[in-house]
Order: sequence, then structure tokens, then C-alpha cells
Amino acid sequence: MKKKMLMLVTALMALAFLSAKADVEQWGRFEVALSGPTNGNPFTDVQFSAKFFQGDDEVQAAGFYDGKGVYRVRCMPDKTGTWHYVTQSSSPSLDGRTGSFEVTPARGSNHGPVRVANVYHFAYADGTPYEELGTTCYAWIHQGEKLQETTLRTLAGSPFNKVRMCVFPKRYAWNTNEPELYPYEGIPPQTWDFTRFNPLFFRHLEQRIQDLQNLNIQADVILFHPYDGGHWGFDRMPAVSDDLYVRYLVARLASYRNVWWSLANEWDFMKFKKESDFVRFGEIISQNDPFHHLLSIHNGSLIFNDTLPWITHASIQNGMAVESPASAELYRDVYRKPVVYDEVKYEGDIPLRWGNLSPQELVFRFWNGVVAGTYVGHGETYLSPDDVLWWSKGGVLKGQSPARLAFLKKVLDSAPATGIDPMERWQNPDIGGKAGQYYLIYFGKSTPTTWKFSLPRSPALSENARFKAEVLDTWKMTITPVPEDFIVHKVTSYSFEDQEGRSISLPGRPYMAIRITAL
Amino acid sequence: MKKKMLMLVTALMALAFLSAKADVEQWGRFEVALSGPTNGNPFTDVQFSAKFFQGDDEVQAAGFYDGKGVYRVRCMPDKTGTWHYVTQSSSPSLDGRTGSFEVTPARGSNHGPVRVANVYHFAYADGTPYEELGTTCYAWIHQGEKLQETTLRTLAGSPFNKVRMCVFPKRYAWNTNEPELYPYEGIPPQTWDFTRFNPLFFRHLEQRIQDLQNLNIQADVILFHPYDGGHWGFDRMPAVSDDLYVRYLVARLASYRNVWWSLANEWDFMKFKKESDFVRFGEIISQNDPFHHLLSIHNGSLIFNDTLPWITHASIQNGMAVESPASAELYRDVYRKPVVYDEVKYEGDIPLRWGNLSPQELVFRFWNGVVAGTYVGHGETYLSPDDVLWWSKGGVLKGQSPARLAFLKKVLDSAPATGIDPMERWQNPDIGGKAGQYYLIYFGKSTPTTWKFSLPRSPALSENARFKAEVLDTWKMTITPVPEDFIVHKVTSYSFEDQEGRSISLPGRPYMAIRITAL
Repeated sequence: MKKKMLMLVTALMALAFLSAKADVEQWGRFEVALSGPTNGNPFTDVQFSAKFFQGDDEVQAAGFYDGKGVYRVRCMPDKTGTWHYVTQSSSPSLDGRTGSFEVTPARGSNHGPVRVANVYHFAYADGTPYEELGTTCYAWIHQGEKLQETTLRTLAGSPFNKVRMCVFPKRYAWNTNEPELYPYEGIPPQTWDFTRFNPLFFRHLEQRIQDLQNLNIQADVILFHPYDGGHWGFDRMPAVSDDLYVRYLVARLASYRNVWWSLANEWDFMKFKKESDFVRFGEIISQNDPFHHLLSIHNGSLIFNDTLPWITHASIQNGMAVESPASAELYRDVYRKPVVYDEVKYEGDIPLRWGNLSPQELVFRFWNGVVAGTYVGHGETYLSPDDVLWWSKGGVLKGQSPARLAFLKKVLDSAPATGIDPMERWQNPDIGGKAGQYYLIYFGKSTPTTWKFSLPRSPALSENARFKAEVLDTWKMTITPVPEDFIVHKVTSYSFEDQEGRSISLPGRPYMAIRITAL
Repeated sequence: MKKKMLMLVTALMALAFLSAKADVEQWGRFEVALSGPTNGNPFTDVQFSAKFFQGDDEVQAAGFYDGKGVYRVRCMPDKTGTWHYVTQSSSPSLDGRTGSFEVTPARGSNHGPVRVANVYHFAYADGTPYEELGTTCYAWIHQGEKLQETTLRTLAGSPFNKVRMCVFPKRYAWNTNEPELYPYEGIPPQTWDFTRFNPLFFRHLEQRIQDLQNLNIQADVILFHPYDGGHWGFDRMPAVSDDLYVRYLVARLASYRNVWWSLANEWDFMKFKKESDFVRFGEIISQNDPFHHLLSIHNGSLIFNDTLPWITHASIQNGMAVESPASAELYRDVYRKPVVYDEVKYEGDIPLRWGNLSPQELVFRFWNGVVAGTYVGHGETYLSPDDVLWWSKGGVLKGQSPARLAFLKKVLDSAPATGIDPMERWQNPDIGGKAGQYYLIYFGKSTPTTWKFSLPRSPALSENARFKAEVLDTWKMTITPVPEDFIVHKVTSYSFEDQEGRSISLPGRPYMAIRITAL
């Protein structure tokens, strides 16, 4: 009797839900939740999806089982106005359900998902530039509730607008604690039913992604990683389980506009996976994500074939590549896609060389990447008595680079909306900007006392163009305007110089830059 | 009557040829020449090919029309012993002709064609290492006979074992003279029948390739280039003519063991071609070259997608990339193929910055490339009253780099046969070699007076391993042995150092290197 009552209430609630014309923002999340079968294994036995459409525009989205008889399917509508949907299912109780909803214009900080823009850069779907500045907290969602809240507060006060984070828990140096939730039904640490997901785990993941969205931070969601080492075995599931997991994740997360897919961290360090496995995962996602989120894969020592068409940007680990702009820019030409150096070693003091950069060195690498027209990722590995290292667990930032990266972020936010590109590829790699309009010249570790005002030739640069200049101390975080303006003329077939041949004085310190802006 | 007599003689000669059991060396060239139809357009109307086989091994080779009723089809047999052939043709007189020939072992300097070896390197088909050291004489075969002979003599006395050279003539600064031969029937400079090749032109090309083979020099044959600018129009033929030309060239040249295919020079500067055209050419060659010669494509400012499977090695123009080993090694990881920097700017004194490197700078770039596990190409552009610049026309070498490159070649020839690889990618790019056996440390423009004996960790490096060391002055071309031996032990998890902590003295000059060899 009790059970029957419960079913009735559920059915009434579903009806109430369906009859309401829910309002949702453009690029918000609209969800259809239905009651369906609980017998057998609902995760694998029941096909459930929906078509969402507005006129001729339609998207096909896979649904998922969320436990306790509830099935959900979600849409991230990319247009305002009235949308309709119709469900499809192998179960009659979930099939052919229809409804409609109103999509209102995006408001506030909602600019839609991030897309590739101008070949090498990013922008939100509404055209607002997105100047990528990421950090790394691989296992922050697997720590205690209090630490997670601390991490969110830290992020809120940081310059970072992307976080790399793992779905699966991590077991590695300074991170050997068990997580509070596991992705599968089973008995920790090794007895899992890979055909039955744990909805609580994924709802928690979703909540954390939503928390980041509320802070305008992109979640670079890492699907696989080697830092399991067989402890739980999520790094060595059979292919059929891998695929089921990838599909389940896409069905759950694709409606979150701040999601980026990262197929793996250090893909080539996963001993039980082949390169072709990741190609398969990438194809599954690119064919099943109705909203086409950014999609990449991060390397250990073997770089993936990032020329594959479904890879939206190169996610590179290579600290050396950003030791000079000349190196940093090279991958751009190969991939013709945005290059994000997601791992360039970390600011910290652990005894391993990948985690003991000085803050100066890390900031130096960011600036090299920036003037080369690429993006660089932050990480922090300062030893701590409680083993809470930002790179793995989150918590608070202790380093000196974040303040400098906030300074850099301000510079980027006032740069041309189309992004910074190398001004003379393969010739003068230390100058990035937008020809004729904007130049950033970075001097790195050299300590010049003067810089002759000279800009590389470009069709966009004309005789008598007038510029103002500022001297930036990227470490001390100061911006000092140069009092006089500069007017250029063509001097050689390669350069335009100040008509009076003037130079700009520099203080003879490292980490200086000059910013030049057309008047 | 005269014509009939001529036909009879030709037929008898063909018969005589066929009845002889010609001996040919392994990787030599066996040719079947037959008389066939002369009516219509033999270049396009007649299909002619042959199957060459030895037991179950067989190759299918396209034949070609060589003018005056003669059809040829060629084989580069890769095995010794008795081979057989049977011709196939749309013309009965050329169809079903059979014969056999004996293939004798390769002798002397015949080591077969060059292949990719050890992922990033090259070797001859018989396993002999091939240490690539190329130069560039784009239009040397289009100059007068005397100058061509001078070029061959210069090459004979040079360290170079590859020449980049164009099939089509070149029209560019310092090269505006008309060639003596044209590839098509027609009226120079613009009226061509692209369906009728000029056999004399191609026989001359073949002779020059054979001349290079006799000098043990590879011919990197450039199929298309933009230095026509519409003067002859070979840079803007219709697609059907392009394809006919590519097939004709493959039919003629594939039996020359020293041929490499370079689809284009500066492919992206060819305004009348799209990227997809070059993909098509590459596919035609890879499907029709029975002997699988090396195949690449050289860029202007847009690098081709060298990850495509039929591209055997990356042929890169980028001078900046070899300004440091740290940059030079990056493309290796992307392509997982040999990286050949075929154009890194030239030693010379022309007013254009791509042609006025000092000899020191060019040699510096070679050494950067070498320790990074890549290969670098030479070119020379010294102004001359007769407009004979080596890079374009050949002639004699005037620069100071070739002697230093001969010194480098000697170093390479005594290096491990498997090639030089970076010893610690993304960490210490200035050290190349073979772990545990051989190390080359290059100091470039820095001027150290001492170097602490320290080698990067490797499974191939063991406690108490003993080494000898030599100090190389790469500019002065001296090799100075260090009197004492060095015995290493593990000092950190990253390095092995001399047990007594000793250093090697250096003279404080630029362009020094240290060579370390296991004892």
C-alpha cells in the first residue's frame, strides 16, 4: 500500500513538472525527469533519450538513469524562444513524452560555453572573449566537504577561470586518502559493478561543476588518469565499461555549459590503455555530445595526435616548451588550433623537479606562452604538514605566482578581443599582439636598459601611425606609462621605427615587458 | 620504305634486348623497352605497365612513353636471384610480353634506397646508417651543361649526401634565364601541350639523378614550386595535368634508388593549389610508387599536416626552430617521424634576411639540430657578378660552412648507428646521443670555461660506467682528447656524475662541444 502511494505521488510530481512551462536561460540547463523501470539493471537495460527542437533546429541528447527509478535527459538550449521535446525510450513508460519550455536570454555572467575563436584562441558562445588562465586541482572534489568549500573560496578570489579536475579519485604521493564517494556500486577498494554507477557520486560531481560555473570558472573534466595504479582499478576497466562510463558522463554533464572534456591526464602513462582507446573515447564524445564542448587530451611524455579533427585544442604538458616564446609558438603551426600548455611544472618545493619551480620561473613561463599566442596552466606544490597540496587537493594558495597571474590576467583582459598572436612568427618571437593595434614585448630573464622603438612590418602598420607605450614590471606588478608618444615610419623592408629613432628606457631588471597601443 | 625499315630495325633491337638475360644489381634498375603505337597521343592513350615478380613477391610498376614509339617500364628489384616480368597494356603490341633477369648482390657503394629507421632517423635498405646532410640547388639542372658539370664536381668534393632540386624550371631573383629544355611539347614560354611530355627533358633529369647516385647523393626531387609565377604556368596547370605529370614522374623515376619525393617547395605559397591538391598528389605517389621512396612536403609559412600516414618524414622550413636544441626537438614529438629542417635560412650576403646568415650562424643551427635528434639542410646565397648563387644554380661553394659541415659529418659518421636522440627530452635539450654509450653536448653561443661531468639518468647508464671525453671546437674543427677517464655514480634521481666530481675545462669560446664515449 505504501509503495503504491509512493508511485502515485511520483507520477503526480512528474505530471506537475511536465505541465509547468519552465523558464530556462539560453545555455542554461533544461531537464526532463521521468519515472521509469527499476527492475533489471536500469543503467544498461533501458535506452532513454530525447529530441529537443525549435523549428528545424534540433539536438538529440542521451538520457541517463539517476537511481531510485528516476530517468533524466537534459538540454543546453542555444537559442531563445519556445523549445519542444519528445522522449524516446525502449521502455514504454519513458517513450513519447512531449513538452515545451521557454528559453530566455542569457543574463549576467552567462555568455554560453567556451568555443574556439580565431583559430588559436577562445571565446564564449556569445562572442565575449575568454582569456584562458587555468589552474590544476586534480582531486579537489574527492576531499572532505570543508576542504572543498575552502577550495571554492580560494578559486573565487583567484585569477583562474579554468580548473583541471579528475572524475575518478586519485591515489598518488600526498594523496592517499580514500574519497568519500565512489563512482560505482561495490565494496571499496576493488569490488565494483562497472555496470552500476553511483548516482550520489555523479550528483556531487555535478554540484561541484555547477559551483565552478557560479564562479565563472570552466571545469576541464579529466575522464581517465593513471593515478590509480590499480588501487581501485578505474584505470584498467574493460573497454565495454570504459565506453559505458564515457557515455554516462556525457549524458550527465553535457548540459553544463562550463564543461570541457579532457580525455585523460598523461594518457600515455596509462599502462592498460592503447592510443586507439583514446581515439575511440574521443569519437564517442564528439558523436554524442549534443553541445560540442571543447575536447582535448593531456600527455605524459608522448604527445597525442592533436591534428585529429575532433580535438578542439592541444592540451600539452611540456615545461621546456614555454622556457622561450620561440619554442612556445611552434606547436601552433603544427596544430592550427589553440595551444594550451596545461602543465609546465609547478610552483612549489617538493623534491621532484616537476614541482619545484620558483614563482618567478612559473610567471616567466606564462609570459613566454602569452606573447607566443598560447595559454599556460598554473599548479602549486608546496609541501604542507597536512599533505594538502593545491595541485592535488585544493585548499588555499600559498605561492607568489597567483598575484602575478592576476596582474597578467588584467593585461590580457584589456588586450584585443581577437587574442594575442605572434607578430612575426619564426623571426621575433618575443613580440605578441595584434598588428597595427597592440604589441606586447617580453624581455624575460634578460635585463636590458633600453629598447629601440621598432615594430615588425605588417600590412596593418602604416606610415605615421602613432602609439603610446607603457613599461610593465611583470613581477612587481607595476605599469609605468612612457610620457611621449611614438610615430613610426618604414625603415627597412622588415621594420617600422620611431621617426625620431627614440628608445624606451628600461630598469635593467628581469621580467620586464613593454605594452604598445595604437592611438 | 625507309619508315618500314626503321620499324623492322627497332623491332629486332627490342627482341635482342628481350632475349638477353640482363644482369642487374639489387636495387639497380632493370628496364623493359618495347616498341608500340605512335598514333594518337601515346602519353595518354596507351596504358602500359608490368608485373615484376620473384616467387610470391611481386611489384606492379607503371610504364611510360619515351617518345619515338618506345615504351619503357622499370623495376628496382629488392632481392637477388631470378626475377620475371609480364607486361600489361591496352595495346596488343605491348601486352603480355614476358621475360626474366638475374639480380646480383649490391656492390660497392650501393646500399639500396634510404628508408626511415629508428623512428627519427634514416638508414639504407641494407641497414647501413645514412646520416642526412643535405644542400639545396633548386635549379641546377636547368643551367648550361658546363655549370651543371661544375656543380657535380663541387658536390663530389662536399660533405653533402642529399640535394634538393626542382623538376620544373625556376624563375626568381638571380635566376631569370630560360632553361635549355622544357618538360612539355609546345612553344616557350607559355604555349604548352600538358598532355605531351618532352622525353628529352626527362631523360636529362634522369641523367642528373644518376650522376648524383654515382656520387652517393640522394636527389630530393621537388615536384611543384611557386617560383614560376605564371611565367611558364607549370605552377597553375589544371588538376588533370598535375596528376598526369605526377604519374609520369613516378613511372620514370621510381627505379632510381636515390630518389626522394618532395611534393613541393613552399607548398602554401602556390596560389593556384589547395592543401587538398597536395594530399591528392601524396596519395597518388604512395599508391603508385612500387618502391616506396621517402615522401615529404616542404612549407612556406604554413606547415603541412605531416602526421598523414604517407608522409615519411617532416620536411620543415623554419630557421628559428634550430636557433636552440630546445626548439628543434619539439617537432619530433609531434610527428614521431624524422624531422629534417630542409631550410633554416642560408649562409650568404643577399639583402634578404633568409639569405644572409653568417657561416658561424648556419653551422650553429646544424649543431642545434643534431643534438636535438633532427637533421638540418644547407644553402648558400653569396652574391656573384654572374648571378650564379649556389642555392639556385649550383656552381662552386664560396662559404665557410661546408668545411665545418664536413667536420660535423665525420662526427656523425662515427656516432652510434642508430642515430643521435635527445638524452633528456624537455629537460636538457643540449645533450644528444645514445644513453650509456655516447653523448654529444653542445654549448652553442655560450662560452663556458668548465663543464661538470654529469649525465642524465637512464636505465642504460650504470654505476661505475667508464667514459672517455673529447673537447670539440666545431668552428675551428679540432678534437682534443681529455687525458683522464671518468667513472660515474648516481648522485641524484636525475643524474650520474663523475665519482671524483671532476669537470672538463673549456676554452671560453663559443661553438664548443664535448663528446663522451663509453669505454
